[in-house]
Amino acid sequence: MNLKMEALQLHEKHQGKLEIHSKVPVKDAKDLSLAYSPGVAEPCRVIFNRPETVYDFTMKGNTVAVVSNGTAVLGLGNIGPEAALPVMEGKAILFKSFAGVDSIPLCLNTTNVDKVIETVKILAANFGGINLEDIAAPQCFEIEERLKAEMDIPVFHDDQHGTAIVTLAGLINALKLTGKNKQDLKVVVNGAGAAGIAIIKLMHHYGIKNMIMCDTKGAIYEGRPYRMNPQKDEVAKFTNRERKTGSLSEVIKGADVFIGVSVKGVLTKEMIQTMNRNPIIFAMANPDPEIMPEEAIEAGAAVIGTGRSDYPNQVNNVLAFPGIFRGALDVRATQINEDMKLAAVYAIAGLIQDHELSKDYILPKPFDPNVAPAVAEAVAKAAIETGVAQKEVDPREVYEKTRQLATIK
Amino acid sequence: MNLKMEALQLHEKHQGKLEIHSKVPVKDAKDLSLAYSPGVAEPCRVIFNRPETVYDFTMKGNTVAVVSNGTAVLGLGNIGPEAALPVMEGKAILFKSFAGVDSIPLCLNTTNVDKVIETVKILAANFGGINLEDIAAPQCFEIEERLKAEMDIPVFHDDQHGTAIVTLAGLINALKLTGKNKQDLKVVVNGAGAAGIAIIKLMHHYGIKNMIMCDTKGAIYEGRPYRMNPQKDEVAKFTNRERKTGSLSEVIKGADVFIGVSVKGVLTKEMIQTMNRNPIIFAMANPDPEIMPEEAIEAGAAVIGTGRSDYPNQVNNVLAFPGIFRGALDVRATQINEDMKLAAVYAIAGLIQDHELSKDYILPKPFDPNVAPAVAEAVAKAAIETGVAQKEVDPREVYEKTRQLATIK
Repeated sequence: MNLKMEALQLHEKHQGKLEIHSKVPVKDAKDLSLAYSPGVAEPCRVIFNRPETVYDFTMKGNTVAVVSNGTAVLGLGNIGPEAALPVMEGKAILFKSFAGVDSIPLCLNTTNVDKVIETVKILAANFGGINLEDIAAPQCFEIEERLKAEMDIPVFHDDQHGTAIVTLAGLINALKLTGKNKQDLKVVVNGAGAAGIAIIKLMHHYGIKNMIMCDTKGAIYEGRPYRMNPQKDEVAKFTNRERKTGSLSEVIKGADVFIGVSVKGVLTKEMIQTMNRNPIIFAMANPDPEIMPEEAIEAGAAVIGTGRSDYPNQVNNVLAFPGIFRGALDVRATQINEDMKLAAVYAIAGLIQDHELSKDYILPKPFDPNVAPAVAEAVAKAAIETGVAQKEVDPREVYEKTRQLATIK
Repeated sequence: MNLKMEALQLHEKHQGKLEIHSKVPVKDAKDLSLAYSPGVAEPCRVIFNRPETVYDFTMKGNTVAVVSNGTAVLGLGNIGPEAALPVMEGKAILFKSFAGVDSIPLCLNTTNVDKVIETVKILAANFGGINLEDIAAPQCFEIEERLKAEMDIPVFHDDQHGTAIVTLAGLINALKLTGKNKQDLKVVVNGAGAAGIAIIKLMHHYGIKNMIMCDTKGAIYEGRPYRMNPQKDEVAKFTNRERKTGSLSEVIKGADVFIGVSVKGVLTKEMIQTMNRNPIIFAMANPDPEIMPEEAIEAGAAVIGTGRSDYPNQVNNVLAFPGIFRGALDVRATQINEDMKLAAVYAIAGLIQDHELSKDYILPKPFDPNVAPAVAEAVAKAAIETGVAQKEVDPREVYEKTRQLATIK
């Protein structure tokens, strides 16, 4: 039986993947009187008088909404809320399995930015965080920015920041391996969608100076008179300071790093041969990368990352999002800021010891049980240090708790 | 330790009551490839091409939203969405424990009718049914009516219909016990809120002719020039055809049945003494009934029901809602219509055999494991018979499935 049929049967057999459970016994009248009427009135009263205790007495403190409108589902495009539900359920069970985070899929039947924002805000009481997922660009940018500004719980668009965090973690280890350093590095990012924009911004925050972003029209530069948008304008302010023009094949000359979040086959062996020595290639288009790893190697690539599980160095968001929300929830962070993201980057990269590092091992495997605990600890610590934690917790305890709650062992 | 402290500690110990679980294994890369990328794309594609299959491949088919805005939480009033969350979590675990229905608390931060409706509709993709809960009258009426009209999944306001169903089930058995019959019966309903309106409408549908509803201004009659609203107008069309005026103490004279969904202490022994022989008293104000059962007995009441678990004949909604949604989900009913409600009434009443019937036993106990399966079967059957079922299932299978899924044994 092929994978497609097997996946279909699995989903049908269980009628989806997610169910709810009671954490308290419901076996007799006494149980009922505590969990429901009349006992339940007591936590209600306490929360009414001291709203912050909603984190102590309800599911809110451990629960994240996985919010999508199904407009940009990976590999499938705009398939709408019903058809996107299997992906969001999948995401929810990953949150639970990797880091003990409860999460609820919420597929919204609207493509209107204001309505997405309003709906999420109306639902805020129930959740300790919002994971935005598979929402098309450019709407995803405004939705995330406004929700971050208007809500006091973390909002995180995983397609942007999860991808950026894992990519940068891989890049840091690839630099170590190839002896390159971030000061002298020249990076080309191909693809100016949600992931590309987030990756280049995080690399900027990390301190890489010399970067060029390309879209289908070629190099982006400040003041380019066509096909710009607010996100590209922002990127153009800190990239391509020489205002180079031209296609990918022109601007990639002499680059150390290619990061592709675009489409199948746009990177050729010939282009790689024009890059600097020991080029680093992240070809992350899914399911078919910008160049197949075999070809990239033939062309001289020193390290290759893809989005695929059947090649080494898979850039898989599951390395990031479970631990990030675990850490954020445990210290009741009001946001997931840039320092928390970088802390996650270093935690992921740091899980591979120098002596273990190789061209086929720059990123931990998805099922490495050390990843989520390490990320959660680092994120919690960064939240405390940057003053966005509402609860002081020893980050080491966050590590232990994550280990304990995860079913990935 | 008292109940309040114990309830508080229970909620804090577990950080609420509800968690999610994965129904599928997530232990290795193969599991991930089936439940998430790339395998998950297959159910997405199938649902995109055949939208009705969302019931087969996702959680939707077994999941109900428990929607509240916290404006009328029992005994607590308008406490808002955060403080209402413990009640909705409690409701969710009852759904699961009694009938295997997955449900998700959604406490909405809005009191605006249009926004409640819009939010629920935007979220419809995720759910096979909507259970409205603890929403203040009169907004609850418009919200339910419009959602029923505009959505193709069942919408059920439990405070109205759950209460009405269990009350009528109890009444049917009380009539049997006292030898009264519905044709000659005179009923007074005191309280014209959500529950009272639903109770009197369901009794009307059941076939009781002679009824009067009272609010704080006394008997409601068609054309009453004060304190009317659309719901009372509707009720006035089929009740109190003689247009009697006056207070409860006046209109209760000669009545067979008093149904109170009002406030503490409004029914006196003297009033009961003016009722017909063997009066039936449902004094359901919570936590303090319209008259205490001891007093009602002294005044000659033949049968007494209350909302309390420490007296016989508790009118407890848990007898109804888990089985109702189980039955509705299993046949993919598009609504919960009056015949389905009456089917639930007869199923609940019918669980007590004639020889078991007594003045202290007119309603099954909440933890009677036969209740939810019987209700689910009856509701499924009625849905099929009234043509609102989208899936033909043997109602007997619904019974067996409910038995199997419930953790109440």
